[in-house]
Amino acid sequence: MPKEDFRKYGHQIVDWIADYFETMEDLPVLAQVEPNWLKTKLPRAAPGSGENFEEVLKDLDGLILPAVTHWNHPNFHGLFSTSTSSVGVFGEMLAAAFDQKAMLWRTSPASTELEEVTLGWLRDMMGLPKDLTGIIYDTASVSTMHAIAAAREKLNLRIREDGMSGRRDLPLLRVYCSEQTHSSIEKSLITLGLGQRSMCSIKTNDSFAVDAGELERAIEADLEKGYLPLCIVATVGTTSTTSVDDLETIGSICANRGIWLHVDMAYAGSAMILPELRHFLDGIERADSIVVNPHKWFFTPFDLSVLYIKEPEMLKRAFSLVPEYLKVAEEVTNQMDYGIQLGRRFRSLKLWFVMRYFGQEGLKARVREHIRLAKLFASWVDDSNDFELKADVNFALVCFRACPKGVADPCRLNEEIMNEINSSGEAYLSHTKLNGEFVLRLSVGSIRVEERHLKKVWNILESELQRRMS
Amino acid sequence: MPKEDFRKYGHQIVDWIADYFETMEDLPVLAQVEPNWLKTKLPRAAPGSGENFEEVLKDLDGLILPAVTHWNHPNFHGLFSTSTSSVGVFGEMLAAAFDQKAMLWRTSPASTELEEVTLGWLRDMMGLPKDLTGIIYDTASVSTMHAIAAAREKLNLRIREDGMSGRRDLPLLRVYCSEQTHSSIEKSLITLGLGQRSMCSIKTNDSFAVDAGELERAIEADLEKGYLPLCIVATVGTTSTTSVDDLETIGSICANRGIWLHVDMAYAGSAMILPELRHFLDGIERADSIVVNPHKWFFTPFDLSVLYIKEPEMLKRAFSLVPEYLKVAEEVTNQMDYGIQLGRRFRSLKLWFVMRYFGQEGLKARVREHIRLAKLFASWVDDSNDFELKADVNFALVCFRACPKGVADPCRLNEEIMNEINSSGEAYLSHTKLNGEFVLRLSVGSIRVEERHLKKVWNILESELQRRMS
Repeated sequence: MPKEDFRKYGHQIVDWIADYFETMEDLPVLAQVEPNWLKTKLPRAAPGSGENFEEVLKDLDGLILPAVTHWNHPNFHGLFSTSTSSVGVFGEMLAAAFDQKAMLWRTSPASTELEEVTLGWLRDMMGLPKDLTGIIYDTASVSTMHAIAAAREKLNLRIREDGMSGRRDLPLLRVYCSEQTHSSIEKSLITLGLGQRSMCSIKTNDSFAVDAGELERAIEADLEKGYLPLCIVATVGTTSTTSVDDLETIGSICANRGIWLHVDMAYAGSAMILPELRHFLDGIERADSIVVNPHKWFFTPFDLSVLYIKEPEMLKRAFSLVPEYLKVAEEVTNQMDYGIQLGRRFRSLKLWFVMRYFGQEGLKARVREHIRLAKLFASWVDDSNDFELKADVNFALVCFRACPKGVADPCRLNEEIMNEINSSGEAYLSHTKLNGEFVLRLSVGSIRVEERHLKKVWNILESELQRRMS
Repeated sequence: MPKEDFRKYGHQIVDWIADYFETMEDLPVLAQVEPNWLKTKLPRAAPGSGENFEEVLKDLDGLILPAVTHWNHPNFHGLFSTSTSSVGVFGEMLAAAFDQKAMLWRTSPASTELEEVTLGWLRDMMGLPKDLTGIIYDTASVSTMHAIAAAREKLNLRIREDGMSGRRDLPLLRVYCSEQTHSSIEKSLITLGLGQRSMCSIKTNDSFAVDAGELERAIEADLEKGYLPLCIVATVGTTSTTSVDDLETIGSICANRGIWLHVDMAYAGSAMILPELRHFLDGIERADSIVVNPHKWFFTPFDLSVLYIKEPEMLKRAFSLVPEYLKVAEEVTNQMDYGIQLGRRFRSLKLWFVMRYFGQEGLKARVREHIRLAKLFASWVDDSNDFELKADVNFALVCFRACPKGVADPCRLNEEIMNEINSSGEAYLSHTKLNGEFVLRLSVGSIRVEERHLKKVWNILESELQRRMS
C-alpha cells in the first residue's frame, strides 16, 4: 500500500475508533442480529481482484458493527466485564506493525526483555513474592495448562519422555480444586491427558470457598487408594461469585504434603494492586504458580494472560525442544523454551503503555471505583424488599436475584428478566446457579462505566419486575 | 483518554508506522543490542502517576526500536520470512478496539461468522476439499495439538474422561512422522501426555520426504509389539528444506489401516493458492486435519493459524465443557467448544482485510513472485563454482552452502559466513543441518522484498567468501 494511502486510511480508522468509543453507549450491548445474518450477507468466495480499501471500510459500518457485541460498552455487565483502553489499542497497532515472533531472544530482544520488565512491575504492584518469574501466554486456559504441566514435570515420573499411555507404573494422578473452580482447570486436565477422572472437586462452604476439611479428607482417601496428588488449585475470585479460597490453610496442606499449589486469580489479580484487599493473599508465598489476566480488569486488550511461577525451570524441563535451525550461541532467555507456543506476539507493549499512561495511582483509582460502584449497586439490592444478595461482594461482581413475595418460581422469573434485558440491548447481565437457584450476575469493569450506568440497570430491573408483578 | 488526544496520538502512531515501513530498509535486520540492554534502561517499577503519552512515544524510538529484530525487513531471510501487510495492521487496530472475546456466538456473532466465511474462502483458494471445517487458533503448535487431541478422542479410549494415568488397559499410542517434521509435533505429544516415546520418527529419502516403506515397516513392528497407531503426520513444506511428503502413498496407508492423517502445511499452505503447485496436494482428500498459517506467507500479522478438520465434532467431543454462566439457549456454533481456549480474539478481521484488499489475483502474484525470486537466487548458486544447492527449491526457500575447493571444514566456513552476515545487520539468514552438514537457509517471503534485495545478499556472500579465501 502506498505510504500516503496508509496514512489516509490509518487516520480514518483511528477517527472511526474514536467515534466508536464515544458513541458506543447508544448501541445495543448484545448484537441484535439473528444467527447467520452476517454469513448470508457475504460473498461465497474471496474477490478475484483486489478491492479499493474504501469499500472494505464501508462494510465496517454496514456489516461488522451490527454483528459486534460491545464488550467495551459501559453497560456490559455479563461474565466478567472487561474493556480495552485507548493506549491498549495503540499498543496493539504497534505490535502488529512490528509483527514480532519472539521465539528466540534474538528474534525479538524488545519483546523478550519488555515482558520481563513489565511482569516484574505488575508482580510488585500486586505485592506478590519477588521470587516469582512471569511469562505471558494468550489466555488463562493456556496459562493454567502450563502451570499444571510444570507440576506434572516436577513429579519426576518421566511423563515428558515416556508419556502415560502403555505404562503400568503410574498411579492415578489427582488435582484438587473446589466445585466453584473455573472450567479451564478441567479443560487443562483433559488436554494434558490426565482426564476428568483426575479432577477431585471439593465441596465449598457457605461463602463458596473450598472446605479445607473436605480437602484434607479427599486427599487422605486418595492416598489410601494409591492415588498421587499432583496439584491443588485455589481460587482468589471465582467466576460464579468471586469467592476466595483460604490460601493460608490450603498452602499449609500443600506445604505439609509437598503438593504443588496453583492459585487462579485470573480475574481478581488486578484488584490485588489495592493494599486494602491484600489480605485475600495471605499465604500466597506458598504458591508455586499463579495466573493473572491483565486482559480482564487491567484495561489491556485481549489477549494477555500471565503465569507467575516459582520454578520456571520446570516449564523449561517440560517444554524445551530446540531444533537445529533454532540453535543459537547466546546465553539468553529464549521464550520458546517455556511453553507449547514457538512464536510469541509482542504482547508486553500494550501492558507497558497501560501502566505508563495510567500509572500505579491511576490504575488503583479505576479498580477502586469499580469496587465502589459494585458495592453501591449491592446496597440498592440490599435495601430493596424485592431483591436480595446471594453472595458477598468481594470485588466488583454482584450476585443477586429478584425475590418478590408470592412468586412461585423465582428462578424462572429471574431468567425471564435477564433475557428481557439482554435482548433489549440496554444492558448485558449473565447468570449462575448457586445452591440450585438461578442467580443474576452484574459485573463492573469497563473503563467507561459510571454511576449512572448502574442506576440505569437498577431502574430497568425495578420496572421489569413491577411490570411482571402488576 | 479524551477523544481529541486519541485522534492526535493515533494519527501520530499511524504516521510513525508509515515511516517505519518506508525507512526500515536502512535499519539492521537483527537487533544490534546486547542482552539486557533494554532491561537495564527501564525503571524498576511502574510509574506512580500516569505519564504524558508523548513521553511514552519518545521511548518508541529510543528504547524499543533498537531492540526490535525487523521481521518485515526485505532482507529478513531467516527461519521463514514472514511479514505483515498494511491492511493487516488495520485489522489488528480494529480487533483491539472491538476487544471481542468470542467464546459464545452471542459474545461475538461478527467474529464467529466472519471466521467461518474467511476460512471457507481460504480453503477454496487452496483447492482443499469442501468437507473441511476451519477454525482459527493462535499458532501452528496449538493447531497441531488440537488436531492430535481430536485424533486421540476418535480412538474412543475414554482419554477425555478417564485420562491415561493409573490405567492398565491402554496400549502405547504412537504417532508417526518424518525426522524432518517440525518440533511442534513433539511438543504437542509432550503436552497431551503422550510423551516423546509415542513419537515414531521415520527416515527420509534423498528428497527429505518420508520413506513410505520405512513407515509401513515401523507400523508393522509397532503392531507386533501391541502398540496402537494414533496418527500419521505428513508435511507439505518442512521447515528445514520445504520438502514434501507423498500424500497419496501416506494417505493410502492411513486409509487401509484406519489411522488419522494430519497434514502440516503451516508454511507451504499459502502456496497452494497457485494451481501450478497443486500437484503437491495429490491425495489431500484423505487428510483428517490440516494446518495452514496465514501469519506465515499470507501477509497477515501474527498470530493466525488455521486448523482444517473433517470431523469438527471430534474437537467438540474432546473439549466442550459448558459451565452454568456460559449456558445459552441459542442453537449456534459457540467456538469455545472447539478447543482449550475459552475466549478468542477477532482474528478473522485481518484475514478478511488481506483477502479483500489484495484479491485472489494479488495474493497469487505475490506468492508467485517470491517463488520466482527464490528460484532466481538458486540459479545464481547453481551457476557458481563456489556454492552449491543442498535441497530442491519447492517453494521460496533455498538451502545452499559455500563449497570452495580446498576448504578443510566447510561447515565451519558456512557458519562463520552466516554469523558475519547476521551480526552485520545487512541481512538475516538461518541454517539447518542436512546429512550432518551445516547448510544455509535463505527464505523469501517479505511483502517488501525485491530482486535487488536478493542480489545484495548474493553480493555479500560472494565477497565474504572471497575475503576469507584470499
